[in-house]
Amino acid sequence: MANPKPLQTGRVGRRSILLGVATTIAAGSVAQRAQAQMAGDPLASWNDGPAKQAVLAFVQATTSDQASKSFVAPEDRIATFDQDGTLWVEHPGYGQAMFALDRVHALALQHPEWQSQEPFKSVLSNDPAALAKFTESDWLTIAGATLAGMTEQEFGKIVTHWIESAKHPRFKRRYTELVYQPMLEVMNLLRANGFRIYIVTGGGQDFVRAYAQRVYGIPPEQIIGSSLVTRYELKGDKPELMRLPKLFFNSDNDGKAIGINMFIGKRPYASIGNSNGDREMLEWTGAGSGVRLKMLVYHDDAAREYAYGPAGGLPDTKVGTFPQSLMDEAKARSWTVISMKNDWKHIFAFE
Amino acid sequence: MANPKPLQTGRVGRRSILLGVATTIAAGSVAQRAQAQMAGDPLASWNDGPAKQAVLAFVQATTSDQASKSFVAPEDRIATFDQDGTLWVEHPGYGQAMFALDRVHALALQHPEWQSQEPFKSVLSNDPAALAKFTESDWLTIAGATLAGMTEQEFGKIVTHWIESAKHPRFKRRYTELVYQPMLEVMNLLRANGFRIYIVTGGGQDFVRAYAQRVYGIPPEQIIGSSLVTRYELKGDKPELMRLPKLFFNSDNDGKAIGINMFIGKRPYASIGNSNGDREMLEWTGAGSGVRLKMLVYHDDAAREYAYGPAGGLPDTKVGTFPQSLMDEAKARSWTVISMKNDWKHIFAFE
Repeated sequence: MANPKPLQTGRVGRRSILLGVATTIAAGSVAQRAQAQMAGDPLASWNDGPAKQAVLAFVQATTSDQASKSFVAPEDRIATFDQDGTLWVEHPGYGQAMFALDRVHALALQHPEWQSQEPFKSVLSNDPAALAKFTESDWLTIAGATLAGMTEQEFGKIVTHWIESAKHPRFKRRYTELVYQPMLEVMNLLRANGFRIYIVTGGGQDFVRAYAQRVYGIPPEQIIGSSLVTRYELKGDKPELMRLPKLFFNSDNDGKAIGINMFIGKRPYASIGNSNGDREMLEWTGAGSGVRLKMLVYHDDAAREYAYGPAGGLPDTKVGTFPQSLMDEAKARSWTVISMKNDWKHIFAFE
Repeated sequence: MANPKPLQTGRVGRRSILLGVATTIAAGSVAQRAQAQMAGDPLASWNDGPAKQAVLAFVQATTSDQASKSFVAPEDRIATFDQDGTLWVEHPGYGQAMFALDRVHALALQHPEWQSQEPFKSVLSNDPAALAKFTESDWLTIAGATLAGMTEQEFGKIVTHWIESAKHPRFKRRYTELVYQPMLEVMNLLRANGFRIYIVTGGGQDFVRAYAQRVYGIPPEQIIGSSLVTRYELKGDKPELMRLPKLFFNSDNDGKAIGINMFIGKRPYASIGNSNGDREMLEWTGAGSGVRLKMLVYHDDAAREYAYGPAGGLPDTKVGTFPQSLMDEAKARSWTVISMKNDWKHIFAFE
């Protein structure tokens, strides 16, 4: 990968979180847990309260009575979930950002010039203060050097290897162990009632595809995410898709509504997110007729996970920002805000 | 729609056939016909021969024996079909081009300046010689004036109205009546054997979505096609997606392989096309392991439909070009070429 170029931003001018996604559950366990839950309380990790009730009422309203006005035909049962901060831990950095930083270390031997060249120098010297100050341009340089310059197939293998070995700095567990058990229960409940679940992530589509089937039971064709321009090349007789250091689609903010329209062409009946980047997805979902589930996960549990906001006086953050304006809109539009602290009995399966 | 701007081409430099798609079968009839066919010969409109045998052998190899090396797991049974010239008539112009020309007439009263302004003037004066000489830039101007400047919802309504009323100039039937009965049989056979069918069209994704469910039984999330940039707008409280006169994705040529990777993330086991624009889709499909079906429809029946090539000495055409180099590649890679004249007993359901 000679001369890595900085990743160029594409059509959408907003901040890209292509560097954004990462999750651990043993293979096969999704289905087993689903069976166990169906036997008793399908939302066993949820405390009783308005959030749990909102999910149960939604499923009841849309699937139980074919004669009801709120009944939804099986082919239209679409639910869209954000990933980072909604399905798994996004602090201290989006999973894909953590992956990219690890890749800089892994590729450093091939790039001796990085020892004296920013932003690589700061990454290689493990300088958290410098990392916290990285600009969008710094992240794009890192993305260009770590996410592009290989075929789609090669990239998938690199991500798979990383996800099977990398550990979260605080929890000392694989990222895929840091998925939220209550959200897996919601996904299983929706699936058991005929919903098709899509992930709509600001992170990389191909990054999430590398593990979403195993971790969430969600196949590649139901992963919508940010993507790079790819170039079709014949190597000998064999075609390959080369990943270029140029953003093609930014699946964040307005890009989430645009991506849902482009990839699905149907309006979801349920959407769950956790940050400013999910605002348009929830607006788009809520604009449909009938009963729609719109929820935001609110990270207010510093003891078991993280607390960041700044709504409600929580610490500010660039990763998974939940500003007061989003809290105000949630209230005005009657979106359900899930308090991790109060609504979730367990956060992780390993607790 | 004041000041329509010409459609701008996007990232892929090749000729766009966004102006490209159009099809008639009574609602509900797809399922009925499917049932009828399953009872007897599933490919009743096909003459016995290598093309028919290729389809039957493929289905047999991939679905009949779970212990076989060529067996394909149900979740991986993906088939991709081009639309124009593969599923329905594409001459004298792609369906979406015919739609755009009709729209110029429909919008002419709101645009008195078009009477003296090319390319609109030639369209309004019904000058086939001038139309035949239209450049790519002329078509993009027409596309910008007729496909953009409204919301996604509004566009869907306009297409639906057109498809229900417009008639093909030669056959004097609705475009949706001009689907190829033998291809409907292949789709039904594949579906009956657990394949999910995607349309991968160089034409407009939203154009095809407006009728694909009714005509082919294919839902919006299984339509991959060219698309415009859309802009997310809040009108009052309500979000809309506005169609802008700028190409976002060109789903033709290499764009077909790129689109399959982006929208599905799995390699198809069967791909059927009919022109140069389908070359990369068939290459991409053929590069997978196991048994794969790769077919090209060859329009060699001037009496019942059209004959154009120029492979095999047929007349040259800009619409659905099938050059000698494609015929050579088909031979070299063992793709099956379907002769409409020899392989199809019936072309249309109304025969």
